[in-house]
This record gives sequence, structure tokens and C-alpha cells, in this order.
Amino acid sequence: MALKQNQANRISDNFALVLGLAIGLGLLRRRGRLMVAESCTGGLAGHWITVIAGSSRWFDGGVISYANAVKQELLGVQSETLRQQGAVSVETASEMALGVLDQHRRLPSGPVKHVPESLFAFSITGIAGPQGGQPAKPVGTVCFAWAGPQGVRTEQRLFSGDRVEIQRQAAAWAMAGLFDVLCRTKAPGA
Amino acid sequence: MALKQNQANRISDNFALVLGLAIGLGLLRRRGRLMVAESCTGGLAGHWITVIAGSSRWFDGGVISYANAVKQELLGVQSETLRQQGAVSVETASEMALGVLDQHRRLPSGPVKHVPESLFAFSITGIAGPQGGQPAKPVGTVCFAWAGPQGVRTEQRLFSGDRVEIQRQAAAWAMAGLFDVLCRTKAPGA
Repeated sequence: MALKQNQANRISDNFALVLGLAIGLGLLRRRGRLMVAESCTGGLAGHWITVIAGSSRWFDGGVISYANAVKQELLGVQSETLRQQGAVSVETASEMALGVLDQHRRLPSGPVKHVPESLFAFSITGIAGPQGGQPAKPVGTVCFAWAGPQGVRTEQRLFSGDRVEIQRQAAAWAMAGLFDVLCRTKAPGA
Repeated sequence: MALKQNQANRISDNFALVLGLAIGLGLLRRRGRLMVAESCTGGLAGHWITVIAGSSRWFDGGVISYANAVKQELLGVQSETLRQQGAVSVETASEMALGVLDQHRRLPSGPVKHVPESLFAFSITGIAGPQGGQPAKPVGTVCFAWAGPQGVRTEQRLFSGDRVEIQRQAAAWAMAGLFDVLCRTKAPGA
């Protein structure tokens, strides 16, 4: 049982690859483009997305907002939100995702014109540990937000495992959640 | 020999962990703080840095500037540089590193006051393949810049291997280069 539970914490590189492919196909089909805002994962989700060759057709980049000052300055997260709800909260996650979506909207159009309806974003902010846990938000607590044409969805989850296992589960969960959002978003002309 | 050469392309997770530790100790000793600008690696270097518990003491985040528009808007890379030298050039790498350093300087101070002399940055921009190679810049070409109190240093390298192997070598090279910069930077009071 312990072994089984331990294995459930392990996100393999192959699983991440499949998630990256699923997202890529989902975005391509909807002519969508993605940017990400990552805190506790430090860029892992962005990297997994760019493991797929040709990902520049749907991925533009993002912000690694590890420090709160970066969340505020580059993503526009409000200091009140950080103070009242904490950096690890669905409220902060929501502002991070909307902040990077806003950055995306303001980008000059490249070869493919960005239309607001085609932009998607997700954010990840959590406590990877081993330090930093609190009774209300233990190590492994990660908050997510997904933003797109249909609005924002947030979620708080508790993962188990060591620091890297928590980071990998968080990145995978954000990607799986985006795939879910994409599945619920009608492709243009569909 | 072929096997040996192939193994040289493989950056293990343990090797990345050691690089992350070395950078962390180097920055701590110099009371330095780091931000990164990543293109072809998509956030891998940032992630490897945050694999180390306590990395918030020296790492603030960065920008995943996968698309040229992100390089321009979030890092201030000049359109002339992109047009004349290309996105994969030491000139673009230099502007990316200086751009993220500039973002870092403008952050409001957190618990630890940022002094300009303590800020370090690196950038990575390259062709991870398998598409996108050109005769002058084949797949595996990656340009780097390291910026800090002693100025900017750039380098262009050619890595071999598959897409992920090139990404992992690039992230590791950027981190190793920062360690080298840190070793040449006097610690305060030293």
C-alpha cells in the first residue's frame, strides 16, 4: 500500500510528455495560445510544454513569479490579496493567471494574430516544502487558476511526497486542468 | 566512443541538483539574488534552481520569453536586434539578461533589501530542434548571457543530442556559467 501510494506521487517524464502533447493538440485545434505563471514549480510546467517540438505554435512563455514582488510587479497581484489571503491562495492564483493573460493580450501580434478569445493561461502557487507549511496550509498545498475565454476557474489541492514530487504533481495538475478547460471550449467553427 | 559521446549529452537530475546547490551557496555567500530569462529551455533552469529547498533566499523568478513578442515586451529586447541578429544570437541573449536584471532592479524590496550590486541574471536562447536549424545556426546552437555587478558575458555553444538533451545541456550550461561568474565575484567583506 505504501509503495502504491508512493508511486502515485511520481509523475514520469513520459506522462508529462503526453500531457504536453494533449495540451498542444487542444490548443492547436482551438487556434489557442498559452502563457503560464509559475511560483512553486519555478518553470517546470513551461519546460514540459516546450518539450514538445513545435510548441511555439501554441506557447508564448510566461512569468516565473517565485518572489511576491514578481507576482506584484510582473503579474499585477494586489498587495492586499497577498497580505489578506496569502501567496498560496486561490485568490492569488486567480490574479496571477489573469495577470499573465493581460500581459498576453498586450503583446504585439506575431505572424499569427492574437485574438482575445484564443488566449489561455494557468497559474501555480503552492508550498513545495519541506519548510513553509502552516496548520491551515500544510506542505503540499498548491493553488491553481485557469483563465481563458470562458472566465477563471480555481482549485486548491493537497499533494504528498517530497519537494520535487510535489512540484511535478503541481505542474502536471495545472496542465491536466488546462486540457479539461480546452475540452470544454468549443473550437472555432465547431 | 559513440556511447561515451551520447552519455555526455545526458544531464542527470542529480547533476542538475548539484548545480542548483552550487549556485545557491555561491549566491548566499555573496548575498546575491538571481532572476532568469529563458527561451528554448522554457523554464527548466528556473525549475532546477527551485528544486533546492530554501531557494527563495536567492531566487526571485524570471521570464519565460519563448515568443519574440515576450522578449520584446517583458524584457525590452529591441526589434532591430531580433531582425538583424536573430532571436538566437549573443546580442539577443545579452539584451534578455540585461532586461530581466532591469526588471529585478525595479522590484520593490522584500524582507531583504535588494542592492544593485547583489543582482545576477542569466539568459538562454537557442534552437532545440528538431526543426528551425539553419546552416549558420544549426539545431543545438544556444546563446547565453550572464549579467551581474561585473557586467555582461555572452557565449554561443553548439550542443548535440535530441530536443530534451539540448534543453537540459543548455539549462545546465547557464547554471554552470553563473557559478563561474559567482566564483569570480568577491563576496561582500571578503
